[in-house]
Amino acid sequence: MAGSSFGKIFRITTWGESHGPALGCVIDGCPAGVELSEADIQPFLDRRKPGNPAVATARKESDTCEILSGVFEGKTTGTPISVIIRNSDQHSGDYDNIKDVYRPGHADYTFDAKYGFRDYRGGGRSSGRETAARVIAGAVAIKVLGRLGIKVEAYTRSIGPVEADLSEYSRSAVLANATAMPDIDANARALEYIADMKNKSDSCGGVMECIISGVPAGIGDPVFDKLDATLAQAVMSIGAVKAVEIGDGCKVAKSVGSKNNDQFRSSKDGVVKKSNHSGGILGGISDSSDIIVRASVKPTPSIARSQKTVDNKGENIDIEITGRHDPVIVPRAVVVLESMCAVTILDALMSGMTSRIDNLVSIYKNQ
Amino acid sequence: MAGSSFGKIFRITTWGESHGPALGCVIDGCPAGVELSEADIQPFLDRRKPGNPAVATARKESDTCEILSGVFEGKTTGTPISVIIRNSDQHSGDYDNIKDVYRPGHADYTFDAKYGFRDYRGGGRSSGRETAARVIAGAVAIKVLGRLGIKVEAYTRSIGPVEADLSEYSRSAVLANATAMPDIDANARALEYIADMKNKSDSCGGVMECIISGVPAGIGDPVFDKLDATLAQAVMSIGAVKAVEIGDGCKVAKSVGSKNNDQFRSSKDGVVKKSNHSGGILGGISDSSDIIVRASVKPTPSIARSQKTVDNKGENIDIEITGRHDPVIVPRAVVVLESMCAVTILDALMSGMTSRIDNLVSIYKNQ
Amino acid sequence: MAGSSFGKIFRITTWGESHGPALGCVIDGCPAGVELSEADIQPFLDRRKPGNPAVATARKESDTCEILSGVFEGKTTGTPISVIIRNSDQHSGDYDNIKDVYRPGHADYTFDAKYGFRDYRGGGRSSGRETAARVIAGAVAIKVLGRLGIKVEAYTRSIGPVEADLSEYSRSAVLANATAMPDIDANARALEYIADMKNKSDSCGGVMECIISGVPAGIGDPVFDKLDATLAQAVMSIGAVKAVEIGDGCKVAKSVGSKNNDQFRSSKDGVVKKSNHSGGILGGISDSSDIIVRASVKPTPSIARSQKTVDNKGENIDIEITGRHDPVIVPRAVVVLESMCAVTILDALMSGMTSRIDNLVSIYKNQ
Amino acid sequence: MAGSSFGKIFRITTWGESHGPALGCVIDGCPAGVELSEADIQPFLDRRKPGNPAVATARKESDTCEILSGVFEGKTTGTPISVIIRNSDQHSGDYDNIKDVYRPGHADYTFDAKYGFRDYRGGGRSSGRETAARVIAGAVAIKVLGRLGIKVEAYTRSIGPVEADLSEYSRSAVLANATAMPDIDANARALEYIADMKNKSDSCGGVMECIISGVPAGIGDPVFDKLDATLAQAVMSIGAVKAVEIGDGCKVAKSVGSKNNDQFRSSKDGVVKKSNHSGGILGGISDSSDIIVRASVKPTPSIARSQKTVDNKGENIDIEITGRHDPVIVPRAVVVLESMCAVTILDALMSGMTSRIDNLVSIYKNQ
Repeated sequence: MAGSSFGKIFRITTWGESHGPALGCVIDGCPAGVELSEADIQPFLDRRKPGNPAVATARKESDTCEILSGVFEGKTTGTPISVIIRNSDQHSGDYDNIKDVYRPGHADYTFDAKYGFRDYRGGGRSSGRETAARVIAGAVAIKVLGRLGIKVEAYTRSIGPVEADLSEYSRSAVLANATAMPDIDANARALEYIADMKNKSDSCGGVMECIISGVPAGIGDPVFDKLDATLAQAVMSIGAVKAVEIGDGCKVAKSVGSKNNDQFRSSKDGVVKKSNHSGGILGGISDSSDIIVRASVKPTPSIARSQKTVDNKGENIDIEITGRHDPVIVPRAVVVLESMCAVTILDALMSGMTSRIDNLVSIYKNQ
Repeated sequence: MAGSSFGKIFRITTWGESHGPALGCVIDGCPAGVELSEADIQPFLDRRKPGNPAVATARKESDTCEILSGVFEGKTTGTPISVIIRNSDQHSGDYDNIKDVYRPGHADYTFDAKYGFRDYRGGGRSSGRETAARVIAGAVAIKVLGRLGIKVEAYTRSIGPVEADLSEYSRSAVLANATAMPDIDANARALEYIADMKNKSDSCGGVMECIISGVPAGIGDPVFDKLDATLAQAVMSIGAVKAVEIGDGCKVAKSVGSKNNDQFRSSKDGVVKKSNHSGGILGGISDSSDIIVRASVKPTPSIARSQKTVDNKGENIDIEITGRHDPVIVPRAVVVLESMCAVTILDALMSGMTSRIDNLVSIYKNQ
Repeated sequence: MAGSSFGKIFRITTWGESHGPALGCVIDGCPAGVELSEADIQPFLDRRKPGNPAVATARKESDTCEILSGVFEGKTTGTPISVIIRNSDQHSGDYDNIKDVYRPGHADYTFDAKYGFRDYRGGGRSSGRETAARVIAGAVAIKVLGRLGIKVEAYTRSIGPVEADLSEYSRSAVLANATAMPDIDANARALEYIADMKNKSDSCGGVMECIISGVPAGIGDPVFDKLDATLAQAVMSIGAVKAVEIGDGCKVAKSVGSKNNDQFRSSKDGVVKKSNHSGGILGGISDSSDIIVRASVKPTPSIARSQKTVDNKGENIDIEITGRHDPVIVPRAVVVLESMCAVTILDALMSGMTSRIDNLVSIYKNQ
Repeated sequence: MAGSSFGKIFRITTWGESHGPALGCVIDGCPAGVELSEADIQPFLDRRKPGNPAVATARKESDTCEILSGVFEGKTTGTPISVIIRNSDQHSGDYDNIKDVYRPGHADYTFDAKYGFRDYRGGGRSSGRETAARVIAGAVAIKVLGRLGIKVEAYTRSIGPVEADLSEYSRSAVLANATAMPDIDANARALEYIADMKNKSDSCGGVMECIISGVPAGIGDPVFDKLDATLAQAVMSIGAVKAVEIGDGCKVAKSVGSKNNDQFRSSKDGVVKKSNHSGGILGGISDSSDIIVRASVKPTPSIARSQKTVDNKGENIDIEITGRHDPVIVPRAVVVLESMCAVTILDALMSGMTSRIDNLVSIYKNQ
């Protein structure tokens, strides 16, 4: 069944395989009148690209995007925005050795079980390359959210055992550091850890976190499309993510009500909270505090050391996965997290326009 | 915007407030020919009801369900199944004191921000009582899954600092213990901890876990409707859940590829895995191992001790929340977790029927 | 698969069989703050009820509706509105004779083919009684549309060969006449024709039309959710409707461009059209003229004269359908047409709030 | 709001403007294992292209399609199929004269009203060129339906006053005749009529009809996704269609029950009908007879003679629309009708797999 669309009002549809001719995204439902060009999207794609060879694959893709529809005279028209990236560095031959083999930790076996066969080149549709299309959508959503004063910023919180020191948070450090960590010291230690993993033909995981600030109170649609629920779907759908937390997340299980409750107080900006254990969401609806989303990412499954597995004839074999692979995917996934959060928040904000009769009257009586 | 439906093929719609005349669920898309009566649903509702006064509210609701449509001569007809529960013990007067006040940790403020006002009686739509409707849907889904040999079983894994010993797992203990923990010893210690919380006018949280066994490989729809992604939405939409984990969950962030990868091997039952760090899902598709879903639940926000907050005029006030409240909601939420997992898995299984042309041919050429 | 929901933002879900205990509708996504009570809905249900014995069945149903959720202190809360009607006059025994037989022109055979069996009592889910739930939704939608100055009014245009004279249109005549025709003379002739049909143990069809006025230009979502397309789905889904026309409808096939094009002109109210062949929709988007929707309704399939058919063992048999049946269903279907048009228009209007970035900014910056 | 997707299980999303760089379609949910290449799609696109200068525009587009994803080693993989057509003959300069003007019968005014501005080049998204993307989807659906022995064939039934003689139906004539009429004589007379229209700087409409044969009984999802309802949406969403009829369509309004009811009889092929007034659908579900869908198409709104209209400053002006325009669009729309019917039927068939528990068991127990 169709599973490549996300969002109800601002709806994105992605397509494309790792080693097909191209991949892309159709963004349907973007409001008209937003200034948009490839230059708004490309910097986000560049953040996803392999950069520092210490942390990333050697695959060389320019990931140059082209807008094919939905923008006229520099502005969105309200019609579907189709954006495409041609694949260039495909090296399909590299994958003949995994053609008939189920790589541990990968989706080779499950795709065969579902569809009967698969495009095995570079993981096909299950490749991390698929996320480039999500980043396109995220860049557009972030542009629209900017018009409302909403910011969406993600970073690496930990890699293996190395934790970032958030008290030293610097956005420029996130963008400059090869690990996308917000502090320089942790970045250095994480790079050492990654190098060690690489030497051992092993890989590691980590935690990434996204802060969405400026969202007004009142966004999210109980009971199934609560804001935390749709964020959870959005973020868990990113390959390699195995846990999604909102606010204090797993820690709440050991907390107590008197500490975990965020007490309200009145301020000149209206109702505010004295703490933010809730991560900006109460009852599935934004409470105007920062929205905090955290994702745990598993170690890259592709490792060069020998592993036991089976082939598609059911024979037990050993496999070593050579070729181009990131020892850790967190640094490149940070912008994907940002993108999925942005798309989710924008869709919920657009949905929220219809929550009160007064809004309906104000839009149509003022026109 | 409409947010009270979940699922695409097996789609549930819930409605009802805590202190309205009734609440209910419409199940649309259930296959025809499944034996179904109230007797299949009631035991699940009974598990959600407050039982042991040590862990639960004193609200007395019989929660007797009535099937109003979609079943004829004891079998589902394929048309919408409407099930209703009349509310009896409403005590609406109890809530006059919170009418104008935003309780910390509750959705009072966010509902007002979204809709302009709210049904304040017992939390209205944001009450945990809403989950009774989910349990109705879950009971039906579990009945259908049973026809395929699929089991869905949840339990309490921890309450506050007390962890269950899973090596002592017993399903009957889960059903008998007031905490829904699977071992007797942990149950006893958890009850002590809860009693302590109650004495301190405080509350606690915990962790619940669901195991879904018997799901064939191949279920889930990449890239946004991956099985883990839809499970994440389903589970995060349960009130008070702040984190959702699949398989090893958060732990993967500190693991390494050589350990986290589940190696495949051939067996008489086909392809199996030597471990199950993935929690039964690879690339968003079931891998035929047990599917493992875990949720962290926050402490009950309603506590009797004094808290600072604001009222709906923006005045700072103090509040003590008296009345009927669970000191911990995990034990009663376990069946809700089970229900949401069951609905999600069944919807994905029904969707999976269309993944291969051979299935389409086999259904229509054999008829 | 789930097929009992309609609308995306203002979404309705109906349930219930002709002879089950009850039927109802869940309205999800209705804006908060709209005054609503059963008294807003009941008059619409009363219009659908059999009244004049000349044109309608003798089934006696009070069709008293009860709102079970989504309304608090007289206003919609933004949460799902569940409305229920208990069935009283079920006479299930009447239907034993059709239990195993496929009535010509009815859905008995197709329901059995789809689901394997069916609730045969009074047609079960395929009964016209299902439309009572649509009328509930329509009444709510019409209430909301009223806040925007939008009116939705349907009437009978013809019954068999008898055409109404629209130059004599009177809304009070529509509501008073047993045929729901807008002029008294045609009403009288139509009643004679219906009486003649009844004497001959036969039945007849007709045409009904709905005018929606006050819809601003700009509503409808190309290319598949064009306003005429969603209206077509909504109206064709009413049982017995076999054709849907917008504006000049079928006549356009024989017209020419120079006549069919509605020329624009400038007026003090903005852009207006000198004619309305388009029926208020251009390119799938409202053009601010009256929206005109027309539906052709087939003769009631239940007739007392002998017909050839088969039973569910595949045996050829003869059948005479006795019992309570309308000789024509158009008069009672008029309010159903009105309802489906209202729901469709409201959903499209709510969707239209998101078409421009300026609207998004205006809603969120003004709050 | 997003409006460019159609279908639930087999879901298509189209994008692209008349004079943008490209247009295309993403087909999500196509079953895996279907042989597919550009050669399956191109002949359908060729039927939509302007051919005979007597009936069509002089715009020259090769309409060469390229499959960018979802097909591997000649077979569909179950992942989204993205197909693109580059625009070549754009002549955007031709449209400067309509930049600020609202052409009568076109969507210029309504797009401006909805979105605030529009891509005016060739009608932008509202151009008939958008339908090329629908034909891509239709070609794929027809390929899949072929595996089930289902055929979808449309033709022109009338142009202006000229009616085809269906007793002379020949599929090769439909494909060979410039009008897509099924008989040679009517084709000749229609061409004369069209030539006459062209000489008068006028345009004409017509009726097209689609027959879908081989659909088993039991397809369609009451009550809102009835097969006739989704067909009505699909067909009414084609630009210029103003009426959709199923089976006898509008004629039923003047028929009587004893004639309009199709009597059943038993045959060696199971239950059959002695007539097919219902057009293959009863109660919204296929009855195994041919499904008959008819659409009335308005005259091309672009005509060379002078018309009164307004510009986007609200000034009254006169306009003559020169350039490349079809005097009648029916012949080229026939393949679009076929496409939309095919997509709708396939989506409904895939949905129908889940209607019985036996099917679910048979798919999962046999694997």
